[in-house]
Amino acid sequence: MMIIMSTEATEVQIDEVLAKIDTLGFTPHTSRGAERTVIGVVGNNPINARDTFMVMDGVDRIVPISRPYKLASREFIAENSTFPLDGVQMGGDGVVLIAGPCAVEDRNQLLETALACQEAGAHALRGGAFKPRTSPYAFQGLGEKALEMLAEVREITGMPVVTEAMSPEQVPLIAKYADVIQIGARNMQNYSLLNAAGESQTPILLKRGMSATIEELLMAAEYILSHGNRKIILCERGIRTYETSTRNTTDINAIPVLKSLTHLPVILDPSHSTGQWQYVTAVARAGIAAGADGLIIEVHPNPEKAMSDGGQSLKPEKFATLVRQIRGIAEAVGRYVPPSKVPQKMQGQA
Amino acid sequence: MMIIMSTEATEVQIDEVLAKIDTLGFTPHTSRGAERTVIGVVGNNPINARDTFMVMDGVDRIVPISRPYKLASREFIAENSTFPLDGVQMGGDGVVLIAGPCAVEDRNQLLETALACQEAGAHALRGGAFKPRTSPYAFQGLGEKALEMLAEVREITGMPVVTEAMSPEQVPLIAKYADVIQIGARNMQNYSLLNAAGESQTPILLKRGMSATIEELLMAAEYILSHGNRKIILCERGIRTYETSTRNTTDINAIPVLKSLTHLPVILDPSHSTGQWQYVTAVARAGIAAGADGLIIEVHPNPEKAMSDGGQSLKPEKFATLVRQIRGIAEAVGRYVPPSKVPQKMQGQA
Amino acid sequence: MMIIMSTEATEVQIDEVLAKIDTLGFTPHTSRGAERTVIGVVGNNPINARDTFMVMDGVDRIVPISRPYKLASREFIAENSTFPLDGVQMGGDGVVLIAGPCAVEDRNQLLETALACQEAGAHALRGGAFKPRTSPYAFQGLGEKALEMLAEVREITGMPVVTEAMSPEQVPLIAKYADVIQIGARNMQNYSLLNAAGESQTPILLKRGMSATIEELLMAAEYILSHGNRKIILCERGIRTYETSTRNTTDINAIPVLKSLTHLPVILDPSHSTGQWQYVTAVARAGIAAGADGLIIEVHPNPEKAMSDGGQSLKPEKFATLVRQIRGIAEAVGRYVPPSKVPQKMQGQA
Amino acid sequence: MMIIMSTEATEVQIDEVLAKIDTLGFTPHTSRGAERTVIGVVGNNPINARDTFMVMDGVDRIVPISRPYKLASREFIAENSTFPLDGVQMGGDGVVLIAGPCAVEDRNQLLETALACQEAGAHALRGGAFKPRTSPYAFQGLGEKALEMLAEVREITGMPVVTEAMSPEQVPLIAKYADVIQIGARNMQNYSLLNAAGESQTPILLKRGMSATIEELLMAAEYILSHGNRKIILCERGIRTYETSTRNTTDINAIPVLKSLTHLPVILDPSHSTGQWQYVTAVARAGIAAGADGLIIEVHPNPEKAMSDGGQSLKPEKFATLVRQIRGIAEAVGRYVPPSKVPQKMQGQA
Repeated sequence: MMIIMSTEATEVQIDEVLAKIDTLGFTPHTSRGAERTVIGVVGNNPINARDTFMVMDGVDRIVPISRPYKLASREFIAENSTFPLDGVQMGGDGVVLIAGPCAVEDRNQLLETALACQEAGAHALRGGAFKPRTSPYAFQGLGEKALEMLAEVREITGMPVVTEAMSPEQVPLIAKYADVIQIGARNMQNYSLLNAAGESQTPILLKRGMSATIEELLMAAEYILSHGNRKIILCERGIRTYETSTRNTTDINAIPVLKSLTHLPVILDPSHSTGQWQYVTAVARAGIAAGADGLIIEVHPNPEKAMSDGGQSLKPEKFATLVRQIRGIAEAVGRYVPPSKVPQKMQGQA
Repeated sequence: MMIIMSTEATEVQIDEVLAKIDTLGFTPHTSRGAERTVIGVVGNNPINARDTFMVMDGVDRIVPISRPYKLASREFIAENSTFPLDGVQMGGDGVVLIAGPCAVEDRNQLLETALACQEAGAHALRGGAFKPRTSPYAFQGLGEKALEMLAEVREITGMPVVTEAMSPEQVPLIAKYADVIQIGARNMQNYSLLNAAGESQTPILLKRGMSATIEELLMAAEYILSHGNRKIILCERGIRTYETSTRNTTDINAIPVLKSLTHLPVILDPSHSTGQWQYVTAVARAGIAAGADGLIIEVHPNPEKAMSDGGQSLKPEKFATLVRQIRGIAEAVGRYVPPSKVPQKMQGQA
Repeated sequence: MMIIMSTEATEVQIDEVLAKIDTLGFTPHTSRGAERTVIGVVGNNPINARDTFMVMDGVDRIVPISRPYKLASREFIAENSTFPLDGVQMGGDGVVLIAGPCAVEDRNQLLETALACQEAGAHALRGGAFKPRTSPYAFQGLGEKALEMLAEVREITGMPVVTEAMSPEQVPLIAKYADVIQIGARNMQNYSLLNAAGESQTPILLKRGMSATIEELLMAAEYILSHGNRKIILCERGIRTYETSTRNTTDINAIPVLKSLTHLPVILDPSHSTGQWQYVTAVARAGIAAGADGLIIEVHPNPEKAMSDGGQSLKPEKFATLVRQIRGIAEAVGRYVPPSKVPQKMQGQA
Repeated sequence: MMIIMSTEATEVQIDEVLAKIDTLGFTPHTSRGAERTVIGVVGNNPINARDTFMVMDGVDRIVPISRPYKLASREFIAENSTFPLDGVQMGGDGVVLIAGPCAVEDRNQLLETALACQEAGAHALRGGAFKPRTSPYAFQGLGEKALEMLAEVREITGMPVVTEAMSPEQVPLIAKYADVIQIGARNMQNYSLLNAAGESQTPILLKRGMSATIEELLMAAEYILSHGNRKIILCERGIRTYETSTRNTTDINAIPVLKSLTHLPVILDPSHSTGQWQYVTAVARAGIAAGADGLIIEVHPNPEKAMSDGGQSLKPEKFATLVRQIRGIAEAVGRYVPPSKVPQKMQGQA
């Protein structure tokens, strides 16, 4: 961390800062410019002492130097982290497509959607059992019943399942049924939940908070990593800005920025990042072109009957068209779309 | 809700929308302009059907008419909601001042701060026992030990205590020790926690999320209200914007906007909304001038030794100066600052 | 426009609003819900009367229905607007690549860059003569001398030239030398300049303001269109958000949103929208994948010697790699990259 | 400026950076931490060389140390800058109130408003002659005719006049009629206009751009100052954020931040910063409580008939109530409201 002294700082004030650095066991590096003095503070985690210096006389401001996350950084692990998701590799050269309804509504809707997505090329199935909703009066999800349906459809299709946990107690329950536990945008800084996710062995899909910085997303991943779980997928899902013509603003810059800062896989959720199905295809393509390791997309056979987020769901045929375009784009940037499974039960029937 | 048809919508498409409105049990009001047709949808909560219409052909967009919150609105309860906080009335004409350290660090620090704040004019004591921190490596609070210290200091000073719950399980524990349970900005949409708070009888101090709209803050309050707890204090604590010269941007507009939309008391936290002690006094004054029902302010006798947020803490003497200015401002806007208690133990000693 | 009455509006207040609508020559459509009354106002441009109703008793708020721009909208012109840029069609199926240095620094730098960009596949040359700079102490451009160099390099390479006008008086001067007049982000709402651009016959490259909404960008285009110039290229160049890891946030959603709202061509400037050369390639690819009609990119042979924006400039070899990837992506989305010209002088030499 | 090397930077890369610093005539201060090396660059304006270093191998990022503005800073001039506005001192202990209609509509409207504002306590008159409007189809102001009316009303009332210039050519014209030339938010980075304002001797009211940072506002002031005009009033008028319940978000923090960074007077425009008359009074009070040197407020006798911004205009009687409250608040923070003039013509009549 660098301590920037104000232009009027006196020698006595500079000496007091140097003495405090010494007291705290750090080493100072002083640089006296024509206008002002800057003092570098070297040692083990000096940024924790930031507030100490911020209130001292003559100090103008503090500039952090080291990144506050360690385990999540490329400086710590240079190679891409990869892990298998029931047959497909997450974080490798193959682009992973996760698709399915916003919420699990009934067994047939789920199975129909899953089979259509799989046929179009999807590798994994998403579907909400517990739904965080802005309104207490909106549909809150089918809960454990939905988890059972997801498990059954996984059995039939062979697709690994992604579903959300909303509180620490739900983590073991979700882990029992799902292959990936999602932590939603609203819970990105729910530290009790992050700690519980860190103690699980199930991969975590961590969504960026609606107004979280890239650094805060990586700090949230650091919570999970520091509790022992190394299998994390980061997900850009749009941020809140002043622009209101779409529900959120897809921060497409975040894809290459995250890929340069961290070894963790990075995917895009174009359904939430746009909020309108008309724009999902264009933005999904942009995500892969920008270097994302995958996509998570809401697909519903009858969006007008969906119990939540129908307005941002693609119909299966539009999803199929998208996958075809994604194949071309992936190739243009040196990636590929791995084949999706043939449903296991149907294999048996053949 | 109003359905705005596109300018190219055909008669058939308009008829299909009208038929769907009928099927769902709502009543349509059609308004045909020169350019396009607009259809009002009247009935019980039509906005839940928003996505149904959003995906129909010929529909351009949907405009909500009713506010999505009920119990929190002035339309539901016209009068200001008030409730007592151990002697002082929250939400009345008196301005309530809550002060204390960011985190409880030790018994003496806490007692010293509490007595200094009380002498300066504070009515209630804040102090964190469980601390949500961006970094997993930062001080996370003393936990239940801190709660015991808070209870002891309450005993001595007679000041009601405000402290934060971070997960649903903590709610009953915090309620045992504290007079007000705080829900922090990062947890404003942690619905499991909101539900638990709603089932408590203890007043809730609900902080606005870092990038929550005013409407979302009121929807979060609605979660608590709809579970039965009517004692809620809303707290503006700064929002995230592009401006980086302060930690957050104090949304001072939110004070009069909230006072017009809701009957719930509204306070300001200038410590977090600025993030730098130099600006706390000016912004605290602005809050009362704008019509806030109170303030929650971080005060620390030795900010440079604080284990968290020292940089935004006022020293007790600066807090005392602030209270004097607040008295003048409160009077100028038709309010007043009620007297603070004389410490109970000290009364006994006298 | 819809007038939403408050839930407590009286019959008398509703009647006063209806009378006012009548007085102003509009037609009301009243829809009485259980909670409140909504009044549609139909006629020629009622939104101009918005403020009149906003201050009447019993009115809660006003909701606009019609889009405020006409000539720029797809409702006005359904087909894509196209126009030729010295050989290449702007707004057609071909993707147009504009490249060159941020500022014109000297003749050789400019020619070298232009030839390298053209060889890599660029169709047009960018280069600033007048530079809007945040600091009065920074390099402000070579002015008319730079325009002469641009004209000479156009002569040699056959590349049409894009350069910026900063004030109304500069418009005719720039038009004398350049094929496209750029209006920069800081001037997007400089109405004197927009009017001057509208009176020119030269195509205008209109950059989105740093915090302009998509609607405001289209309103700025409307200024130009309503003064008679129909040849406008809209340019997304990143918006200002709370995220600081890149200079701006590329609003990739804006590409498909603009393509759906307007018939005007839409391009992306990934150099400014990221601000760091490391991310330019990924985001440029994303732009074409999202449906942009072209790109404008800063290229400099020696970025470390550039007099402005070196940090966001690609070296020519990186630009060449990008063009190769763009070809594949364009194809995957049903577009193509037209061939660039062979330099005219060199043709002569051959 | 500090150059932060990446953690993987090699000795060779560090040496190349040091050599480049030397070549450019700056002095390096090297600080080698356990993780990475940081190099301070000392000399005359090294930040202009930022891009040079940003593209060198092994460089992670650049951190500016010095503030980029000089003449506007408190480091340059420690005392508050003050100057007289026809009788009242701007920037002194007295709080200056500027009031009047958004646009000049006719002579009687203007005179009536001016007299009512003056009687309520206003010191100066605002009124737009040239109006920057988002829509080319909206009322654009009466132009020079309005300037003549302003001059006549100044003659009658003795109130100094504030009105806006929209382009460099208008500056001398406005200066002929007005006491203060306003530069609007949309033109805050219109550098041709800033230069023209700098060459004028008339005081400038410089409004913060809709999404300008505080630093950019000070850089815009620096343009004016560096061209020789030292009489500048800075005006906070709300910034663009994600919150939509008010037209803009009043950045109340900006008041104490600006007062600490610059010697220039700082005022607040609560009409634009809220956009709704209902909230103007509360936010105006907040501005004075936060330390603003004055207010500029839209007042209209018949807001429902105003040709622009009627929705955010106060009626004269509400303005009078506000001034009474402002007196109390000013006193509470050690300021006062100077008496307004008695109209000169009326003096003559008495």
